[in-house]
Amino acid sequence: MEFPAGFNITGIKGENNNNLALITALQGMKTAAVFTVNTCPAHPVIYSREKIKNDIHKAILVNKGIANAATGDEGRKRMMDIVNTVCKGLNISEEEILVASTGVIGKQLNIPDDEINNLIAAQKNVEPMNFAEAIMTTDTCNKVAWSSYEEWGKKISVFGIAKGAGMVAPNLATMLAFIMTNVNIEKEALQIALERAVEVSFNCLNIDGETSTNDTVFLSASGEASNEVIKYEEKGFKTFYEHLQKVCIVLVEKLAADGEGATKLIKIKIYNAPDKTTAKKAARVIASSPLCKTAFYGSSPNWGRIVSALGAAGVELNISQLNIYVNGVSWIKKGKPHKDSIQQVREVMGGGKYELAIDLSSGSSEGVSYTCDFSPEYVRINAHYVT
Amino acid sequence: MEFPAGFNITGIKGENNNNLALITALQGMKTAAVFTVNTCPAHPVIYSREKIKNDIHKAILVNKGIANAATGDEGRKRMMDIVNTVCKGLNISEEEILVASTGVIGKQLNIPDDEINNLIAAQKNVEPMNFAEAIMTTDTCNKVAWSSYEEWGKKISVFGIAKGAGMVAPNLATMLAFIMTNVNIEKEALQIALERAVEVSFNCLNIDGETSTNDTVFLSASGEASNEVIKYEEKGFKTFYEHLQKVCIVLVEKLAADGEGATKLIKIKIYNAPDKTTAKKAARVIASSPLCKTAFYGSSPNWGRIVSALGAAGVELNISQLNIYVNGVSWIKKGKPHKDSIQQVREVMGGGKYELAIDLSSGSSEGVSYTCDFSPEYVRINAHYVT
Repeated sequence: MEFPAGFNITGIKGENNNNLALITALQGMKTAAVFTVNTCPAHPVIYSREKIKNDIHKAILVNKGIANAATGDEGRKRMMDIVNTVCKGLNISEEEILVASTGVIGKQLNIPDDEINNLIAAQKNVEPMNFAEAIMTTDTCNKVAWSSYEEWGKKISVFGIAKGAGMVAPNLATMLAFIMTNVNIEKEALQIALERAVEVSFNCLNIDGETSTNDTVFLSASGEASNEVIKYEEKGFKTFYEHLQKVCIVLVEKLAADGEGATKLIKIKIYNAPDKTTAKKAARVIASSPLCKTAFYGSSPNWGRIVSALGAAGVELNISQLNIYVNGVSWIKKGKPHKDSIQQVREVMGGGKYELAIDLSSGSSEGVSYTCDFSPEYVRINAHYVT
Repeated sequence: MEFPAGFNITGIKGENNNNLALITALQGMKTAAVFTVNTCPAHPVIYSREKIKNDIHKAILVNKGIANAATGDEGRKRMMDIVNTVCKGLNISEEEILVASTGVIGKQLNIPDDEINNLIAAQKNVEPMNFAEAIMTTDTCNKVAWSSYEEWGKKISVFGIAKGAGMVAPNLATMLAFIMTNVNIEKEALQIALERAVEVSFNCLNIDGETSTNDTVFLSASGEASNEVIKYEEKGFKTFYEHLQKVCIVLVEKLAADGEGATKLIKIKIYNAPDKTTAKKAARVIASSPLCKTAFYGSSPNWGRIVSALGAAGVELNISQLNIYVNGVSWIKKGKPHKDSIQQVREVMGGGKYELAIDLSSGSSEGVSYTCDFSPEYVRINAHYVT
């Protein structure tokens, strides 16, 4: 595990499952961010969207248990009370802090002062695993990923922590991810790298087609590696981007595999599509189709549902040219099931992880989605969750 | 039960669950239709879309068990063989018959000649319930609805039969509906009446957000009532339309209540929306949100999921003006749960049928969706269905 220099990080368990977590870089960090497109964003999203415009930040504060969405003016006030207390404790300004929340929508924050004080007291620690565990909601395991490399004789590392279960769960709202790096990079380049990486990772994740009120990905750079500053598309950008993308994709795989009730991780790859938009849409509709996902759960080689989902989404299909593979095994060839391989197809689909590759034979564009299967357990988790 | 004069109707059970059903009006009927928007339509949809252009039809042939979608040239050929045999038996032309299929996608039709002969032999019967039962797939009950009235001293009746389980099930593909009336009406007026009625009924039905390859609604008029011919927006049109709409809505309620695994029927009504499009979208996203639907299953008053689903779909919400009612009981008032009524809200949600009314307080438009809850049984039905 290569945790980048320049950050302190911790997480503490609170009463009633209301945990707090904190990342600090009191010497200053550059932070890039992407936020949910949900038109009812939570207060922390509204706040952070405003503050992300500042050049330098010193802290990211996270609470778990309450999403602080649909909480009105009272929700804003309670958030600001906590932000003020933390800023005072860290001796930083409100302009230098970012906030993220995950939990139940429509309930008010209620965090006792002594828990905030405990968090501030733990600020000097470097405990990424405590952070990763403090932010879990219906997640069954923590989710961290890292990658490192050397450039200019400097060791550069990219370390990411996420929580999900998902976009899957707007009630327990949220997919949150926090990525830290010691690289020295211009803020504009950092933002572009993040947006590009999110596009091929988090935005390709689909657990249940729900986009929460709180989804946020932060990428913070401490600059502690003291390398020559990286500018967009100039020296060092490409290598940094590749490691960032790798970390994001590993986090997404972990999020998909731990989707609520999930028993399988499925990578859906569309290729030879007429254009990029169609390729991405095709991957996304299969990843979010309840009928495809229940068939994945049942390890049922049900290609009719794939065809129907694509057709329902308006993808123009030439079925007589359609090929489908699972982990490279030919399942559908020119629009017909490949009889000799059906047993092998069933075996692959019975496993916990596979790639479903769909060749549309109508162009040269590609698209990817990461998803999980849809199990009776998903329904159980979400039917009785107490609001 | 008021079955309209001028039609013969029957259904027969075949081997391997491959049933046939037939509506005839050998003296001629006018038929209007709406078809699926799925871009991979089944062969019967492609065929009927072409033949519906003719003025007069004499038969509608239905098979259940095989959807005849994604079956290539061979599927077209097998359908035409059956169509030819039926046309010969009835002494009608291929231009006078319409076809609908429901069943598994990607498999070939295989109907023995003697079953087709049995169907033709039964053609003179009037057995609407046999028809309704023959076309059931995962439906747990038949679905019929009727309405009748007198005008010009004539008794006019509208009789509808549907099968669903649903759009819910593109594998067992399909929502099909067949509506018959003895009214004398111009074909153009019939088509407009059908499209208008479908818009407020079948198009408001959402069981799992899936649109099948075979969805079809036919409306046939025998003219046997011998009333003065009805023209669009002229004398008699409005009354006929009202009865047609009533029949369609009852069918939709029956379809929603019998959605795969469904335990509840929920009517979602959006009102005071800024415009019609927003109202309909808002109703539709709630009807198709897995998280809202699992909460309906759990009788869980989870308003955060409703807010999140609306926000994820881009509906602009002023939460402080949002009101939500279940069967008229105030649940959310100006964006806050109504504490006194929560027990009553839970009781209503625990029932098998209720209306969820959402007041957006941002205009005067309305939208409606009919849906069911989402249960572990839905997953079980769809996980292991053998392709």
